[in-house]
Amino acid sequence: MVKSLTAKKKAAMYNGLYNNLVVIGGNAAGLAAASQARRKNPDIGITVLESGKYVSYGSCGLPYFISGYVKKIEDLFAYPRDFFKQERNIDVLTSHQVVGMDPAKRQLLVNAADSGENKVFSYDRLVIASGASPVIPRIKGAGSSNVFNFWTVDDARRLKDHIEQNSPRKAAVIGGGQIGLLMAEALKKLGISVTVIEAADRILGGFEPEISTIMTRKAEMEGIEVLAGTEALSINDSSVTIENSGEREDIPCDFVLFSAGIRANTGFLEETSMELGKKNAIIVDNKQQTSYMNIYACGDCATVKNLVTGKQDYIPSAGNGVKAGRIAGENAAGGSGSFPGSVGTVVDKILDLELARTGIGSVEAIDLGFEAIKLIDSYASHAGSVPGAKKIAVIAIVDTRTRRLLGAQMIGAEGVGKRIDVFAAAITNEMTVDDIYMLDLSYSPAISTVWDPVNKICGKAVLALDGK
Amino acid sequence: MVKSLTAKKKAAMYNGLYNNLVVIGGNAAGLAAASQARRKNPDIGITVLESGKYVSYGSCGLPYFISGYVKKIEDLFAYPRDFFKQERNIDVLTSHQVVGMDPAKRQLLVNAADSGENKVFSYDRLVIASGASPVIPRIKGAGSSNVFNFWTVDDARRLKDHIEQNSPRKAAVIGGGQIGLLMAEALKKLGISVTVIEAADRILGGFEPEISTIMTRKAEMEGIEVLAGTEALSINDSSVTIENSGEREDIPCDFVLFSAGIRANTGFLEETSMELGKKNAIIVDNKQQTSYMNIYACGDCATVKNLVTGKQDYIPSAGNGVKAGRIAGENAAGGSGSFPGSVGTVVDKILDLELARTGIGSVEAIDLGFEAIKLIDSYASHAGSVPGAKKIAVIAIVDTRTRRLLGAQMIGAEGVGKRIDVFAAAITNEMTVDDIYMLDLSYSPAISTVWDPVNKICGKAVLALDGK
Repeated sequence: MVKSLTAKKKAAMYNGLYNNLVVIGGNAAGLAAASQARRKNPDIGITVLESGKYVSYGSCGLPYFISGYVKKIEDLFAYPRDFFKQERNIDVLTSHQVVGMDPAKRQLLVNAADSGENKVFSYDRLVIASGASPVIPRIKGAGSSNVFNFWTVDDARRLKDHIEQNSPRKAAVIGGGQIGLLMAEALKKLGISVTVIEAADRILGGFEPEISTIMTRKAEMEGIEVLAGTEALSINDSSVTIENSGEREDIPCDFVLFSAGIRANTGFLEETSMELGKKNAIIVDNKQQTSYMNIYACGDCATVKNLVTGKQDYIPSAGNGVKAGRIAGENAAGGSGSFPGSVGTVVDKILDLELARTGIGSVEAIDLGFEAIKLIDSYASHAGSVPGAKKIAVIAIVDTRTRRLLGAQMIGAEGVGKRIDVFAAAITNEMTVDDIYMLDLSYSPAISTVWDPVNKICGKAVLALDGK
Repeated sequence: MVKSLTAKKKAAMYNGLYNNLVVIGGNAAGLAAASQARRKNPDIGITVLESGKYVSYGSCGLPYFISGYVKKIEDLFAYPRDFFKQERNIDVLTSHQVVGMDPAKRQLLVNAADSGENKVFSYDRLVIASGASPVIPRIKGAGSSNVFNFWTVDDARRLKDHIEQNSPRKAAVIGGGQIGLLMAEALKKLGISVTVIEAADRILGGFEPEISTIMTRKAEMEGIEVLAGTEALSINDSSVTIENSGEREDIPCDFVLFSAGIRANTGFLEETSMELGKKNAIIVDNKQQTSYMNIYACGDCATVKNLVTGKQDYIPSAGNGVKAGRIAGENAAGGSGSFPGSVGTVVDKILDLELARTGIGSVEAIDLGFEAIKLIDSYASHAGSVPGAKKIAVIAIVDTRTRRLLGAQMIGAEGVGKRIDVFAAAITNEMTVDDIYMLDLSYSPAISTVWDPVNKICGKAVLALDGK
């Protein structure tokens, strides 16, 4: 009987079937993968190894926990701890950090933080959804007790505790991307004065400069100091030493927050021959398959096809994570799903301004060899006849050869969030600005203008392309 | 000299050129046409004949004028009266009603209301943008002084004056479409109690029944009486006699408002052989050309290609009007623009609920021979972790053979308006639900959920199509 089972199992494995799926990572992408694998196949064993103490939390909401807008951190947890075992028969092991992998033996070396012991986990198929981690700037004092990262639930708790216990009055945020600015806003709401230190010549480097300018002005109006083109040299007990245009200065602060970007958590793959790309992300194909045929990857640790460039790119986002996760799980469980890719859609609400982008930026467009032009204008969020309309700045990046829209960005007090998605759908479908100009978009005086801003900026592009 | 000019002009006309463009209609579509013709050709004469006293007003905002939300009716006028002559060298003649046409002579018979005289206008090319008018129900008392239409500025002024002078306490609105409900809301805000009388078995017949149900409940919660399946038989001095399931009743009311739909203003074409379609609308091609080669039409008096069915359809909307108007003007002035058509996108905000649709409905889909299924679900407008999320009911109509999305509808307190446009772009591009499910839509906890409702309903459709 035992012999017969083993033979059956062996045969199954030779046929590419399997009984034991392991998923590394218990957040959005990993749990999407595990759940979809279970839907696809009710019989296999599925184990999720999560390095942290929590699964399935909404990390995008953590700044709201700091500001107090979200009262309990538990409100950010999408599912209770036992949900996956009870509802989906998925074993979730928290505090289990994967520290090494032997692809030939199909084994993982895992450190169980609670007991401190190392364990070996075998897998037939593996989904890697190990996420990303903040890049820690290599500056003196980076490891001090008054320095904070902001990525995990534990990071958020540590920062919140520190603020509650020490009532700091002044913070320095190193890194002026979206998370840095969201954190500056959250700290400001707690009455802490904030200086944002950005090494590049402007904040929000992922956006066009006009949007950086608008946000810089807004931040300064709200009393947040923005120092762009400024290097943080060292973190001291109660200050940060900075250098700007050769001048050094000490910026007083009670604590420092890092938000200098992220990179993929793929250190545990060091001794394998897994192919890695930008930011150490695992290179996958549209089946989410890695260079190892029985290993899939998804989420912030993996590449995503950029639908504008057609190339594998690093586009970490919750949306890409759950979508690619679902495809990874489907395929790891024997399916043949395909993830088409991403146009890099991003939205945030910072200091009461919505800002969003999709597609590629103007510099990237030129770098990629497009003969791109950039249009910018400002439009009302809805008809002037109805009180309360706000201005939206809209940017379009257009390929002059094909007349295709390559990218779009927006910033304004309302009507940005979902409007960017119209551009996202248009770019996904490789629409020309001529066609977007004529797109039948919704109009009601309280909601839009007769020509929607999406139509208008493309009309402007049409005129420019026609030399008018 | 004169002879040579005439010969040149004749030659020009034989070559399809022309010097004299007349546009019938001085609102959104007509003025878009006239303005675009001027941009295209600085030399020709352009005359706009408008039957009413005003040009370029925002009729969609008129209900806000009644409710008092828009204070001055002039705020709804997009351009001052002299703008078109001064800025664009376009002659605009108001109170000039076209009452007849001789296509062979290229002449219009026009009644000038101010002087009462009839005039003849010649044209080389003509753009008809004569709009639409309310359908007046043929019931006894329809012409009484306590009965109001609601379509033009004059209609709005007459109603507003009546309300201010007579302080009516109770109104009956005959017709439960969007305008009827917007007016019910506006009257309610003025403290007038309202009964909506709808002959069909539900209000909002242009939407799916689930949306009618939600809106009926909302209206009743707000104290508006909704009588569906109810025929208005006669209008009396201080009541409307109705019949519902064979039972007659008198509904007391101080005045009656008609909002029983519209049809194209094409009566003046009666003695021509102009081809008319649904609702008497002029049939045009994608160049906006009518059955007469030198006559173009656009706006609420003309058909529009329905991008889902591929057929000319009657889809009156401001958005279609200005877009088709621009193409009509471009082509009437010698260009060769093309209007791709419409997916019938509609949005309104009624009683604090946004409701929207795009594409075709489930009954139309079945009638057209699609093997359509309908999905419906309710989703949060943004992540639950951020307070204030509202429920949005989302409906998708899907062709099971091609897996294409055919139509989508939504209703909810927020996040409907521009979200419908993502569906509009998707339908325009003939996307399958599989592709929309994977569409890279913007996420931030305050603005959306990780899977946007647009993704979610299509994910539900994918499961249904796959028999799960």
